Amino acid sequence: MNPSLHGPRVAVIGSGAVGCYYGGRLALNGCDVRFLMRSDLEHVRRHGLTVQSHLGDFTLPQVQAFGSTPEIGSVDLVIITLKATDNSALDALVPPLLGQSTLLLTLQNGMGNEDYLALHWGADRVLGGVCFTCINRIAPGLIAHTAQGQIALGPHTSAGRTAAEEITALFNRSGIECEFAASIPAVRWRKLVWNIPFNGLAILGGGIPTDQILADPSLRALACSLMEEIIGISRALGHPLPDDFVRYQIEATETMRDYRPSSMLDFVAGRAVEVEAIWGEPLRRARFAGIPAPRLETLYRLIRSAVDRRPPPLHG
Amino acid sequence: MNPSLHGPRVAVIGSGAVGCYYGGRLALNGCDVRFLMRSDLEHVRRHGLTVQSHLGDFTLPQVQAFGSTPEIGSVDLVIITLKATDNSALDALVPPLLGQSTLLLTLQNGMGNEDYLALHWGADRVLGGVCFTCINRIAPGLIAHTAQGQIALGPHTSAGRTAAEEITALFNRSGIECEFAASIPAVRWRKLVWNIPFNGLAILGGGIPTDQILADPSLRALACSLMEEIIGISRALGHPLPDDFVRYQIEATETMRDYRPSSMLDFVAGRAVEVEAIWGEPLRRARFAGIPAPRLETLYRLIRSAVDRRPPPLHG
Repeated sequence: MNPSLHGPRVAVIGSGAVGCYYGGRLALNGCDVRFLMRSDLEHVRRHGLTVQSHLGDFTLPQVQAFGSTPEIGSVDLVIITLKATDNSALDALVPPLLGQSTLLLTLQNGMGNEDYLALHWGADRVLGGVCFTCINRIAPGLIAHTAQGQIALGPHTSAGRTAAEEITALFNRSGIECEFAASIPAVRWRKLVWNIPFNGLAILGGGIPTDQILADPSLRALACSLMEEIIGISRALGHPLPDDFVRYQIEATETMRDYRPSSMLDFVAGRAVEVEAIWGEPLRRARFAGIPAPRLETLYRLIRSAVDRRPPPLHG
Repeated sequence: MNPSLHGPRVAVIGSGAVGCYYGGRLALNGCDVRFLMRSDLEHVRRHGLTVQSHLGDFTLPQVQAFGSTPEIGSVDLVIITLKATDNSALDALVPPLLGQSTLLLTLQNGMGNEDYLALHWGADRVLGGVCFTCINRIAPGLIAHTAQGQIALGPHTSAGRTAAEEITALFNRSGIECEFAASIPAVRWRKLVWNIPFNGLAILGGGIPTDQILADPSLRALACSLMEEIIGISRALGHPLPDDFVRYQIEATETMRDYRPSSMLDFVAGRAVEVEAIWGEPLRRARFAGIPAPRLETLYRLIRSAVDRRPPPLHG
């Protein structure tokens, strides 16, 4: 990274709830942050951005909001928070943002996003971040951040290690709890131990929150055996996890009460669901490594089918 | 078996479509067949029983229909065609039918019905039959038999071999294509290779016929990997199956067009679904033998949950 005198220039691509929250924190700290926006563009240009956060509310009256990436121009850091199902849009969006040493940081869900960036724009500039947080857009220009907020951030290749450490430091200086992670795949698998069963069973249960999964003896047992399988895959791939990780996850989920995973909300609302990032790509990685994943395979195929055969949404 | 001069006295317990069809064929052949009936009792007493069969229609103007088993009294052969979910009703229904050497033949679906009979009334008198057929009750006293009709019939223990051969011969004399099967579990696993995936995915697909399973790439692939798993379990339990059995089943299913498995119809209508007989008991048998069944486990838990969390039916 070769930041200007006034800190790095940052572009946020996909300024939904996650992009606005983390980009907003960086801007509040004085970074030059440029947001690519669609639906909220005019509103944010006029009224700015407000974040209601359990870590402290803030408002940015003046926000650099843009409708295209050529208007943004080249930056030091691109933060990508698009839904993974929209990755093909990056092919046109990213090139105008690239300078000599521009970093690409994906904060997207699931597996395969770093690889997409690496394939198109070179692996050494790619960083990955895994967000552990609960953030929703509740109105145009209004973001609610209700729980957690930390990020595990690391390089895609060893060449990106120093850059990842710098961005980790920048995030921490900006009020974002950020931990350097030498292995992003290890962190992604750790998060998938929860997302694969709970997002999946929330969808296959017909759109139910996590407390209903835990209250149903069959779904609770299935969540546990799915977690066991994902833990086994993670370990077989060389990413260790604690011995009592299933019990830990069940207890953590019990504290969430009627939490509604975002994939389930997307499914019920007829929006795109990140099926490949959360279920498909992890399955393919297990298979590629010769690791059996029969429960994940069954879940993936049922979710893929349920999403593909879903009737069209009533509105947009 | 110790039949009377006029052939065996037979009771049919659970005179739905299957019981009326096979019992009707035996009665047509001159057997003394006594039907235990509930909803159709008065209608059949007045108007008899009509079977529209692709193997030839027939009507029985006079049918021995009863509302309780003490009225029927002891018989040589009890044919049980109750839904497996109603097995506990047998505890009261069967004893009045038992003589010294009464045989109990279950024509029910799935796994575990022979064991239920054996546990309560002794293993040596128990026979099992697996029906390959399509029979529906379309109105009171009116049965439609639209495809196949053959039975594989065998003893539960070696003590029942001669009796099973005699009943097989009786069925064949009565126009029922019946093959003696030395191992009923082998035949049940063979049938489950189809029932487990196709009945299951018809339910989890939201109530879809088999052609929609085959037309959906995810469900078709899942049906195949479920079949592979069940074939593996069957073989591991000592019941061989042909090498190309998955392809054979797919091709056979393609000829069925928009076939609606009875479990799916039961599910959609809010009626009891034979979840344990078709999915739960096969899973427990695999586990008991130490054979992994992760796809079956996943399917079973999702179906168990879907059935248990189903809203109450709109009508009875």
